[in-house]
Amino acid sequence: MSQSLPPEFAAASASPAVTTGPMPGSRKVHVAGSRPDLAVAMREVDLEPTAGEAPLRLYDTSGPYTDSAAEIAIAKGLAPLRAAWIMARGDVEAYDGRVHRPEDDGLKAGEAMGVPVFDRGDRRPVRAKSGAVTQLAYARAGIITAEMEYVAIRENLGRAERAQQGGRDGEDFGAEIPDVVTPEFVRDEIARGRAILPANINHPECEPMIIGRNFLTKVNANIGNSAVASSVAEEVEKMVWSIRWGADTVMDLSTGKHIHATREWIIRNAPVPIGTVPIYQALEKVDGRAEDLTWEVYRDTLIEQCEQGVDYFTIHAGLRLAHIPLTAKRVTGIVSRGGSIMAKWCLAHHQENFLYTHFEEICELLKAYDVSFSLGDGLRPGSIADANDAAQFAELETLGELTQIAWRHDCQVMIEGPGHVPMHKIKHNVEKQLALCGEAPFYTLGPLVTDIAPGYDHITSAIGAAMIGWFGTAMLCYVTPKEHLGLPDRQDVREGVVAYRLAAHAADLAKGHPAARRRDDALSRARFDFRWKDQFNLSLDPDKAQEFHDQTLPAEGAKLAHFCSMCGPKFCAYKISQEVRDMAADQAEAGMAEMSERFVKDGAEIYHTVKPAAE
Amino acid sequence: MSQSLPPEFAAASASPAVTTGPMPGSRKVHVAGSRPDLAVAMREVDLEPTAGEAPLRLYDTSGPYTDSAAEIAIAKGLAPLRAAWIMARGDVEAYDGRVHRPEDDGLKAGEAMGVPVFDRGDRRPVRAKSGAVTQLAYARAGIITAEMEYVAIRENLGRAERAQQGGRDGEDFGAEIPDVVTPEFVRDEIARGRAILPANINHPECEPMIIGRNFLTKVNANIGNSAVASSVAEEVEKMVWSIRWGADTVMDLSTGKHIHATREWIIRNAPVPIGTVPIYQALEKVDGRAEDLTWEVYRDTLIEQCEQGVDYFTIHAGLRLAHIPLTAKRVTGIVSRGGSIMAKWCLAHHQENFLYTHFEEICELLKAYDVSFSLGDGLRPGSIADANDAAQFAELETLGELTQIAWRHDCQVMIEGPGHVPMHKIKHNVEKQLALCGEAPFYTLGPLVTDIAPGYDHITSAIGAAMIGWFGTAMLCYVTPKEHLGLPDRQDVREGVVAYRLAAHAADLAKGHPAARRRDDALSRARFDFRWKDQFNLSLDPDKAQEFHDQTLPAEGAKLAHFCSMCGPKFCAYKISQEVRDMAADQAEAGMAEMSERFVKDGAEIYHTVKPAAE
Repeated sequence: MSQSLPPEFAAASASPAVTTGPMPGSRKVHVAGSRPDLAVAMREVDLEPTAGEAPLRLYDTSGPYTDSAAEIAIAKGLAPLRAAWIMARGDVEAYDGRVHRPEDDGLKAGEAMGVPVFDRGDRRPVRAKSGAVTQLAYARAGIITAEMEYVAIRENLGRAERAQQGGRDGEDFGAEIPDVVTPEFVRDEIARGRAILPANINHPECEPMIIGRNFLTKVNANIGNSAVASSVAEEVEKMVWSIRWGADTVMDLSTGKHIHATREWIIRNAPVPIGTVPIYQALEKVDGRAEDLTWEVYRDTLIEQCEQGVDYFTIHAGLRLAHIPLTAKRVTGIVSRGGSIMAKWCLAHHQENFLYTHFEEICELLKAYDVSFSLGDGLRPGSIADANDAAQFAELETLGELTQIAWRHDCQVMIEGPGHVPMHKIKHNVEKQLALCGEAPFYTLGPLVTDIAPGYDHITSAIGAAMIGWFGTAMLCYVTPKEHLGLPDRQDVREGVVAYRLAAHAADLAKGHPAARRRDDALSRARFDFRWKDQFNLSLDPDKAQEFHDQTLPAEGAKLAHFCSMCGPKFCAYKISQEVRDMAADQAEAGMAEMSERFVKDGAEIYHTVKPAAE
Repeated sequence: MSQSLPPEFAAASASPAVTTGPMPGSRKVHVAGSRPDLAVAMREVDLEPTAGEAPLRLYDTSGPYTDSAAEIAIAKGLAPLRAAWIMARGDVEAYDGRVHRPEDDGLKAGEAMGVPVFDRGDRRPVRAKSGAVTQLAYARAGIITAEMEYVAIRENLGRAERAQQGGRDGEDFGAEIPDVVTPEFVRDEIARGRAILPANINHPECEPMIIGRNFLTKVNANIGNSAVASSVAEEVEKMVWSIRWGADTVMDLSTGKHIHATREWIIRNAPVPIGTVPIYQALEKVDGRAEDLTWEVYRDTLIEQCEQGVDYFTIHAGLRLAHIPLTAKRVTGIVSRGGSIMAKWCLAHHQENFLYTHFEEICELLKAYDVSFSLGDGLRPGSIADANDAAQFAELETLGELTQIAWRHDCQVMIEGPGHVPMHKIKHNVEKQLALCGEAPFYTLGPLVTDIAPGYDHITSAIGAAMIGWFGTAMLCYVTPKEHLGLPDRQDVREGVVAYRLAAHAADLAKGHPAARRRDDALSRARFDFRWKDQFNLSLDPDKAQEFHDQTLPAEGAKLAHFCSMCGPKFCAYKISQEVRDMAADQAEAGMAEMSERFVKDGAEIYHTVKPAAE
């Protein structure tokens, strides 16, 4: 096996090909739970001694890759954090699993595999002995799982200190965000279907996280090889790179060859939930002919991916035959890939969507592995003109019906949403989704608030994402600057994730999440105090912040300078403002008139005299 | 004179140093008004013949620089479009003007000028013979000026065709956006103080534009040499570059040496209104010592800039002595440069802000040149923690008082706004501003909706800008990716302007501007039809759109391909969707069951067979 590895993998255990190392100024810390094998990974940013502040602890999606103490070996995969928890529940069994077929990787019989295969050793898939092994089933049974406790500690970050400062500041539009997140609260939200904890029992490497509008707003990043093939190593690095910048989940949207093999590498090395759209692989298995798709091929693909450990599936079961004519007069028709495939199948056969007619069977499968539903919006609008139209809302209504069915099977469900929506129509989407889908978590792509800015659609969509997150969307699917134009490269992924991270954070601030403002306040204090290093390290992208600063004032001394490069020392508002603050405080004590005299008499040079090297 | 020009200026008339040439696929057109000397410049995007659509006409701020028929000579300046209109009103007189002093350019007596001086020839400044020569004065007198008619034609673009399609789609929060913009409507809005038409009589080169919430949302770009000196030629190019990407006005925020000389070059070549913050230059004249500022120095600076042709002044007259203690407990104090300078002056002298005490004298001056007020928000919040606090709103209340005073003098007024504001506090800003300032146009910086993303603040602020524009802000002051970190370079200016252009457009869409959606719809139709060139050319940044596309599919043939680079031909939602549309339409006619058979029988290859070169 190992001799078939390309160089970047062969050397993996010694020097992994993925990006590792802590974020600047940061350390990985672990917060202990109620049991010895439960320690929640977080990141701590150390501040300069002059700050007189404790290190700031941050929510951290990046997994062991940013832990300087961790040994990363892509060829081995991550440690199976949850394996003991899963087995201890006593309700799953290992079995031989489905036999891998060439077509799983888009190969003809006998065609050689063009990429290395992850060595699973003697590891076998597990499934429920019977019934549901979902977090929803446990929650309904009143069981607080280790995963739920992990999530509670993660989400509760910073709330205790903030609680003492009293007063909630935000508008939550009917969300029920608690002051403190307890494991019981997590259980209750999952039991009510208002949150999901995506955690396939075959993905024990995953650090538990939760998606629901009473929790922090989450961000998904898409990766995947497509028209232009990328190597397996590149795809694993894309996943690691996405979570480094803050993606909470990653969807592998690969099409073409080597889907199965690539996915295995990704999942084995992913500390975050992995989502897929199984119809993409099913379509490959029928040589790309939508009309040749069958329930059997699709079901077999689901099993294949359940066994690999995919945590949630986008399933376009809500697009019904009768909805399709509603799209005929649209400006941009059907823009969802999965949706267009299913629409074509429906029309070719003049039959109801087989994902809809077989929905209960899908539930039976998913609950045996705890794969969450992400009910796809195959009819989402692809332009401002098509937003909130009859087709979109007809499908949403069906998604509501399907949610109830999935819940009857103890399956976890979230609902996908648009798309392209002008600002004045965004709120209606959330209200309708909450009402029709029983408050199941909403998971939206953007939305883009205008169509006219290709090349800048991470921005057009971050506007919509921030707003829809504020209104109640639980997870935001990122959009990169390449949307509509091409495949995102490494920098596009970074730009996309950070744009969405800031949008999600803006949503959390506006919703009034109790501890959301900790980071803003810490960064703003650093800014006002000219602690440049702290300002960089507390930011979402410390590397870029420092790089931008250094472009204007490259000297190391400038990072200690008490002014910004924008205004220079004479015009520095912060510098003057600090003086104003001191003067005002003094004057309040000494009487204003006296102080005025004293100030003039002192006549000291008021501007800082350190000159940047660049001047 | 001309021998002192550096090479880039000397060669200007032959080959200007600034960026010229039409935007891709576009032509400059001129729409005739009611008089021969009134022709409104617009841009027309030609579409591919297969579109079967007329060229799309767009609002165009870029001036003659994008007109292939125009001869650009930076050393001569632009043609004085408005000169005849101004003189024909018979209420202004030319005079010798203030004598230039070395300190106007930050030079000691006898120190040599380090930059070339624009040759004004025998041109002299003009001023009112008496009283007010403002657009507001004319509007109140019932006069529709040529400027007002120009603006009406500009703003009315596309409304006639849209009006036939009926039905307004938007939420305007009490704005009164007309179906058709008439010159009389423009006059009325100016007369009511709800809009300003910034147009210094000494800046006849300026193409008239309007700022008000019942008109299209405008964008300002800041330029200016600062700590790191940039050359005069660079500053002129920055202005030209800003308007190429869509800035409606440009503020010259230069500090340091050669302020006067640089500004002259900018104004003489600017087809858009130029704004400044005169306190910056006044401070230079007193060697950067805020406490040495006097009303006399400031007044002299105002006259200097009135005579040069600055169209609007940011004046921090609302920051009163009594407000300053309100900032003492802020996280980020006073972040406005002008605000911090005035606060320091107030405390040093323990006196009321001299801009406040001399406000009526300022009005007397400004109305003689028609310089508009941009009442500065010296106490705008610089962090999420400080948003909507007592200091900010105390100053806003004073700005409301000053608005009334300025209006009594027939002066045009807009009001500057924050800053850093979380999403849930944005709307309150607009409501309070409208109420306190009698609906005078609001002009806001962002706001940034979180503090934690330095390096991405064009995005954090575009989110706030889109929202505040929707709620009623008339002009959005851009923020570049370098905000808080360094000085924007050329690419940062482009990123900032385009981010704000898309935010302003999103606001116009959401407000329901009758013709706003024309461009979205045209671009979306092009996208659905795979007219790649049209998609690029209709976008806000055609160069970047094409560049991004070509990174994935560089071959020229790929621009004709009927699929995107993201999914490849097999997964192309648009391609499938077009087929679905055709099938659905056919089935509706022929009966569904029959069609199903026909489709299977035809069995033709359904995916487009053109392969991109990159595959």
